[in-house]
Amino acid sequence: MTDLKKFEEVTISSEKIFQGKIISLQVDQVRLPNGSVASREIVKHPGAVAVIPLLGDKMIVVEQYRKPLERSQVEIPAGKLDSGEEPLKAALRELEEETGYRTEQIRLVSSFSTSPGFADEIIHLYLAEELVKGTANPDEDEFLDCEAITLEQAQQYIQEGRISDAKTIMAVYAWQLYRLTGRI
Amino acid sequence: MTDLKKFEEVTISSEKIFQGKIISLQVDQVRLPNGSVASREIVKHPGAVAVIPLLGDKMIVVEQYRKPLERSQVEIPAGKLDSGEEPLKAALRELEEETGYRTEQIRLVSSFSTSPGFADEIIHLYLAEELVKGTANPDEDEFLDCEAITLEQAQQYIQEGRISDAKTIMAVYAWQLYRLTGRI
Repeated sequence: MTDLKKFEEVTISSEKIFQGKIISLQVDQVRLPNGSVASREIVKHPGAVAVIPLLGDKMIVVEQYRKPLERSQVEIPAGKLDSGEEPLKAALRELEEETGYRTEQIRLVSSFSTSPGFADEIIHLYLAEELVKGTANPDEDEFLDCEAITLEQAQQYIQEGRISDAKTIMAVYAWQLYRLTGRI
Repeated sequence: MTDLKKFEEVTISSEKIFQGKIISLQVDQVRLPNGSVASREIVKHPGAVAVIPLLGDKMIVVEQYRKPLERSQVEIPAGKLDSGEEPLKAALRELEEETGYRTEQIRLVSSFSTSPGFADEIIHLYLAEELVKGTANPDEDEFLDCEAITLEQAQQYIQEGRISDAKTIMAVYAWQLYRLTGRI
């Protein structure tokens, strides 16, 4: 049995610093295993979904501006969970809103934390196949372009820095492994 | 030529909310491509390094408590950049501090953003081979166990949730691709 509490840092106090529309921030004082006290800056996030949408020998990606990076980026379709929303439902919603595609052929690849040192964000990553074209319908404050790219183009985009986020690089690796082994 | 400013969100104003020891938080008001105004909650982070340390048919990983997730996690060695520190130097430093291993055989796999929607954190991911045993020397407030695991164990850890962060899952995919194709 795995000990998920190994080296546990017990909360002594927690100060709420900020409550935003998407994230919140708190600073916890914790007791370390040696008894000393340390502070932990923690960003709370509602969680997100992302989808690897495969269409024949291509993957559907979206290009959008990422303010924290101050540049536009090519990424797999993704978005925050709405309050109480089931991740699979959110994945199908984001896929259709951002790309116009629907599917009944979708499964979870993994659920991972993006920045376990300072944030609790979890992304649920899905593989979607057998895509059927519908109509894209981005949120009104969402500006994005949609494109279908080959594995070679995806690798080129990584080289060029047009693809540079963890979930999309992970998706490209997973796609390549799926091609090579038939499994993700 | 790639247009890195496509759909640019121009800053109207920026409010500093918090300056911590590791992260800071600001809220920017931005003008969207359609002229309307939106707010962006942005976490600033100094950047980090992570290392895929391969020793024969095993990878060296560390187990530590992750307060934002409230559980201990198995991850590849990683750490924040010190102020002004060159990423390669930081990667060699973290590798030795956390695992005791040194190497002269190290190269960059990719530099990726962990959460481009709300944070500017970049992780520089390195592949380290030809490891030479020295002495581990974690920071004084760092409590961790070090372990060498096979690819099959790593995949098992992902199934069990003991490995669940983006950089380590990416590392396992990259390691598997390296085995299959001789390249990362």
